[in-house]
Amino acid sequence: MHLNQTDDRMRAFAERVFASETKDDDVRDEISMFDVADDCPILNQELAQHMVEDDDVEKRSVYKLYNYITPFLIKPVKKVHPNLTFNQSPHSKKYLSRTHPMLEDKPTYLEVPHFQRVSITGDYAAGVTMDDFELACKGLYRALAIREKYMKLAFQRFPITPSQYLCKIEGEQWKPENQVLPVFTPLPKPGEDPFCTKDFPPNLGYIPRMKDGVIYVYKDAASADKHQPLNHPGPDLATFIDDMNFLIALIAQGPTKTYTHRRLKFLMSKFNVHEMLNEMEEMKELKKNPHRDFYNCRKVDTHIHAAACMNQKHLLRFIKNSYRVDADRVVHVLKGKEVTLKELFASLNLHPYDLTVDSLDVHAGRQTFQRFDKFNAKYNPVGASELRDLYMKTENHISGEYFATIIKEVASDLEDARYQYAEPRLSIYGCNPNEWTKLAGWFNKHRVYSPQLKWMIQVPRIYDIFRARNFVPHFGKMLENIFLPVFQATIDPNSNPELSVFLKHVTGFDSVDDESKHSGHMFSTKSPKPEEWDIVKSPSYSYWIYYMYANIARLNQLRKERGMNTFQFRPHCGEAGAVTHLLACFMTADNISHGLNLKKSPVLQYLYYLAQVPIAMSPLSNNSLFLEYNKNPLPEFHKKGLVVSLSTDDPMQFHYTREPLMEEYAIAAQVFKLSTCDMCEIARNSVLQSGLSAEEKNHFLGANYMKDGPEGNDIRKTNVAQIRMAYRYESLCYELNLIREGAMAE
Amino acid sequence: MHLNQTDDRMRAFAERVFASETKDDDVRDEISMFDVADDCPILNQELAQHMVEDDDVEKRSVYKLYNYITPFLIKPVKKVHPNLTFNQSPHSKKYLSRTHPMLEDKPTYLEVPHFQRVSITGDYAAGVTMDDFELACKGLYRALAIREKYMKLAFQRFPITPSQYLCKIEGEQWKPENQVLPVFTPLPKPGEDPFCTKDFPPNLGYIPRMKDGVIYVYKDAASADKHQPLNHPGPDLATFIDDMNFLIALIAQGPTKTYTHRRLKFLMSKFNVHEMLNEMEEMKELKKNPHRDFYNCRKVDTHIHAAACMNQKHLLRFIKNSYRVDADRVVHVLKGKEVTLKELFASLNLHPYDLTVDSLDVHAGRQTFQRFDKFNAKYNPVGASELRDLYMKTENHISGEYFATIIKEVASDLEDARYQYAEPRLSIYGCNPNEWTKLAGWFNKHRVYSPQLKWMIQVPRIYDIFRARNFVPHFGKMLENIFLPVFQATIDPNSNPELSVFLKHVTGFDSVDDESKHSGHMFSTKSPKPEEWDIVKSPSYSYWIYYMYANIARLNQLRKERGMNTFQFRPHCGEAGAVTHLLACFMTADNISHGLNLKKSPVLQYLYYLAQVPIAMSPLSNNSLFLEYNKNPLPEFHKKGLVVSLSTDDPMQFHYTREPLMEEYAIAAQVFKLSTCDMCEIARNSVLQSGLSAEEKNHFLGANYMKDGPEGNDIRKTNVAQIRMAYRYESLCYELNLIREGAMAE
Repeated sequence: MHLNQTDDRMRAFAERVFASETKDDDVRDEISMFDVADDCPILNQELAQHMVEDDDVEKRSVYKLYNYITPFLIKPVKKVHPNLTFNQSPHSKKYLSRTHPMLEDKPTYLEVPHFQRVSITGDYAAGVTMDDFELACKGLYRALAIREKYMKLAFQRFPITPSQYLCKIEGEQWKPENQVLPVFTPLPKPGEDPFCTKDFPPNLGYIPRMKDGVIYVYKDAASADKHQPLNHPGPDLATFIDDMNFLIALIAQGPTKTYTHRRLKFLMSKFNVHEMLNEMEEMKELKKNPHRDFYNCRKVDTHIHAAACMNQKHLLRFIKNSYRVDADRVVHVLKGKEVTLKELFASLNLHPYDLTVDSLDVHAGRQTFQRFDKFNAKYNPVGASELRDLYMKTENHISGEYFATIIKEVASDLEDARYQYAEPRLSIYGCNPNEWTKLAGWFNKHRVYSPQLKWMIQVPRIYDIFRARNFVPHFGKMLENIFLPVFQATIDPNSNPELSVFLKHVTGFDSVDDESKHSGHMFSTKSPKPEEWDIVKSPSYSYWIYYMYANIARLNQLRKERGMNTFQFRPHCGEAGAVTHLLACFMTADNISHGLNLKKSPVLQYLYYLAQVPIAMSPLSNNSLFLEYNKNPLPEFHKKGLVVSLSTDDPMQFHYTREPLMEEYAIAAQVFKLSTCDMCEIARNSVLQSGLSAEEKNHFLGANYMKDGPEGNDIRKTNVAQIRMAYRYESLCYELNLIREGAMAE
Repeated sequence: MHLNQTDDRMRAFAERVFASETKDDDVRDEISMFDVADDCPILNQELAQHMVEDDDVEKRSVYKLYNYITPFLIKPVKKVHPNLTFNQSPHSKKYLSRTHPMLEDKPTYLEVPHFQRVSITGDYAAGVTMDDFELACKGLYRALAIREKYMKLAFQRFPITPSQYLCKIEGEQWKPENQVLPVFTPLPKPGEDPFCTKDFPPNLGYIPRMKDGVIYVYKDAASADKHQPLNHPGPDLATFIDDMNFLIALIAQGPTKTYTHRRLKFLMSKFNVHEMLNEMEEMKELKKNPHRDFYNCRKVDTHIHAAACMNQKHLLRFIKNSYRVDADRVVHVLKGKEVTLKELFASLNLHPYDLTVDSLDVHAGRQTFQRFDKFNAKYNPVGASELRDLYMKTENHISGEYFATIIKEVASDLEDARYQYAEPRLSIYGCNPNEWTKLAGWFNKHRVYSPQLKWMIQVPRIYDIFRARNFVPHFGKMLENIFLPVFQATIDPNSNPELSVFLKHVTGFDSVDDESKHSGHMFSTKSPKPEEWDIVKSPSYSYWIYYMYANIARLNQLRKERGMNTFQFRPHCGEAGAVTHLLACFMTADNISHGLNLKKSPVLQYLYYLAQVPIAMSPLSNNSLFLEYNKNPLPEFHKKGLVVSLSTDDPMQFHYTREPLMEEYAIAAQVFKLSTCDMCEIARNSVLQSGLSAEEKNHFLGANYMKDGPEGNDIRKTNVAQIRMAYRYESLCYELNLIREGAMAE
């Protein structure tokens, strides 16, 4: 075989191949710059500008355009009230005028620059018949009213704008007093000790006692025996079940499903058009904004478990260091015998010097996908529960000293990073009434306080395990163990000063477990009361959620009355399992973690949008457990206008770098192609959603952070474009206005 | 409208909905744990184990199995040599026996634990007729022989295993002397100055002179005039073009396309099966491996541009700091007038104090996708080329001091991170013969040396721009400007001691530009010689590559003779444009950057696999420019056994965190679901591919790193499982053996 054989025939052939190669140069078009949904083919700025600015445009062409933008808004059966169109929407005038600073006396940073709006002209209903439209709107209205009611009862948040629309529908005047707000403990003033046990209010002498799974507060023992509780309003079980049944029916109702599906599709397409037209303008705002960029925007890790808040490398380093310093310290009791750290490792047949991230084996690999059971086992370093007890528990032979030290190291890293905060979860199991005292003891003893951390209590839904081992006689006892100590410390703070200090720094409750486990039980008025629930099976998710909520609501009433901080209910919800979980939380939760299953119910997804329920999403965690990264609905939810934030869940198990929250943002930015404005909006959402105090939010987001729309945004602090804020606000008003029209129709 | 209306009908309906919800609980199965390709449905361990271990298995069932694994290996037309089957493959016996440590005197860490092998039994050819099989194998053999020839000529690497098979085909005995190796400068010994200009070898008095675009070395001026060069072998243009035409024909040849496509599909399926069967065993090896985990494996950033090697936040901080310290320093000449840093910023209407990452605007956003032109503009901070000149150039009013400082800061971060290395590219444009002296001056003046950095020279393919401005008379002049100074410094190092020092630390040449620009010219024997190429149009990619290669090859001959370090050719290739780019580099490049377009040619992809050509891939860079992240072929290439490494390309433009290379690995691990073994294998590839010296590779990979297969792997240093190494080695031998069979058939 000759290598250097010249062959003219071959050269000719090569030239032909080369020539055909040259032509095949269409790589550039393989992926277009913006993947606009098929149903939204407007691709050029002039067209849209034309539409918005030129009111005298020939009627026929308007209709053509309008058919392009809104293929799902068909001509209505009867004529709808004309003020549905954008230009007459209740707030838009105000914002349009704000673009002329002469007209109003607003500071420059609140100005919304000119931008191109997507406006819908002409008569329309929403791709459904007028009857269906009204039916859907009435149902959605009632659903929103249900959420507002339960939020108010528990001092949780319901945003002003939907609240104002609900008032309008009811023909009432909205008053600022209507708004009920949570109370968070502000940062200690300079020189103030966050662990100070003085100045607690005096004992009220009330008696807290559980009845039917809910703790009531009585003036004295006598009225307790007669069940004459003090007048703290709380949810009523029968009404709650009614409301729940109404919502279950609503999310399965055909016309409502069609209507909400179409609205969500519209919101998606509208955002794509908005982005295409205004992306550069938004970026211009950010570029002109001095000092502030994505790196120095405040971001809160809204969902993180304390036991896994360090990354794997950090845990490894800590274990190695602890051995270097503490090898001869008695740290554990093994089969009734006290052992030193050295002996403990010897009993496990390992030496920390040889340990690696691989042998530590706390990282979720491909093995955990769709396997929550395996995932839980990953909490044990080197597969040894002894090490979990020693390093990741608050209660052990060394009083949780190592765990406290690790958390303080994480906090100190956050303090160094300056702009990052976290809301770690600590567990209360409800197995024993002493848990609170022990946990508070740990908190105070090791002074586990940092301005970067806001504490949450997570309650694992593992009644079945405790009941099977006979640790608790019935479900009611668990609820009592979880809530009674907190009521007692609220009534007489000085009776348990350490707990009272700890509670000041707790901002809410979480409910956690594998949602894909299914109980099969349906929560109804016929369900056994918690004190009667003595079977080994766990009650359903909704049952759990209701009783957590009912107790938190009454607790908050009492604490608010005493001038103490209140607690938010922020359960894990919609990570897996039935969509009814999301329904229960729509009624009860201030905000949720995960929310993936909103993809499965357009009605709930639209309701979460209308009520602007915050959702802490953790796509990296989902990627290891339930859903591949590029299939995560986060970018879709964000585009539609749902209020999403990014959180890490378990850095120990999922993250690689020293800055897990930044890793989470960086990967989302890269894979989902988020713009800087998107990232800063998500960061702003995370601060709003968090348990940071009003003072901190003021400082991080601007003085008017409670207001909706551009008014509430201080771009100098948030780096979110006012154009984006105006777009979000106007879109929400537009949707709420549709509901109002439909709900008020005769 | 009443909120608390109980409605039995509704409750009943709600219960029905709930019940149906319960049934719909199949989320767990939505994504199966391993997405095995359709054509490879073996899903259970027992089956495969059975196959491998039980030789007496009933014949019929073997055939059934074999039909499952290898639907593309059909029964052959004529009988193929029996030693194609795995058990007789030349090296497997050896490795199988190594699992019994008693039999051989090997250290334990070299042992390959038992693992489950995919073996193919029965007669077969490869889904093609025997004639086509032989045709394909003969073509592939010749292609490999072509690459080996050009690698040897330029002191570039060709792996031992394919080289041994080529010898066998040619009926020759392979000798270790056959192997030609590059020479890299080792780390300076303790106390040795990397900038020492003493001890250079004396002047040889040779005359380097360009002829037909290639620099030849002559004994003296007289022989130069007669063109009687010294006997340094180099490529011959006519032969090169013949070889190229042969390869162009080969990649378009039907049978070869079919054959290679099927082999690649087989390799993919085989890896999936291997992974499914042995993932846990591989992990077990890593867990047992003390000290070493992914974090402390050495990794090299094999492709990074010096001008963008800092991240955006770093650049911002540096600019702000420089203003704080140097505001009144004269740093620039503006319209003929010297200006201070303060005046320079004033002329740009900005104050560094207000600068943010947003206004800096060096990050590639969605705007750069499919727009290489926009991407280049991103190199200018705040869109101002003055700032690029000041901060990111080696030549400016402050002699590149800022740029040197930034690079030294990056190097110092790498030194802190300890296990990360980088190979930054500095530009030589070929516009002026003084460029080398200036660049070397900068390097020596600012002492820009770090053991973490290995330098590369990138040559931008922008002849057309220089020619249009009349900076150069013809293409030959550019080549002369690029290579002549290096030849001169090699012949008489003391004539330019600074350059001689710098060249010691240079490890190779890169060729860079937007590959999607198409020249339309086809490189052939009829192409004008470089000295005749005086039109404004740039020559084609292949033309550029050939002349770069031809000069590097002759340069390396000379440097090797003088005992100096040699240079590798490592161009950007296959990021976009025609697949012929990948063909030119298959002939000339030690390794390439990007390689995305290998997806388009199964023949080239298979050849890159067979010759184990390393590919430095940058999926985050591609994500911003040419290809969405989750469509990147990296995981596919890696599974098939192509030698891929991960690199950052331009941290300034693509990355968010303080550790860009770790960010690159972390995102790849998350999105592509790479196992620890995969990540460590990629890290090992990066060290092998790099210009780290033999001493360093020895230290980082183990003493036998030059050997192929498990013998060459020291798991204690690399953390790559021996099972993986054995799998890769046996698979490669299997494929090469097929080629041998086909090529040797009569």
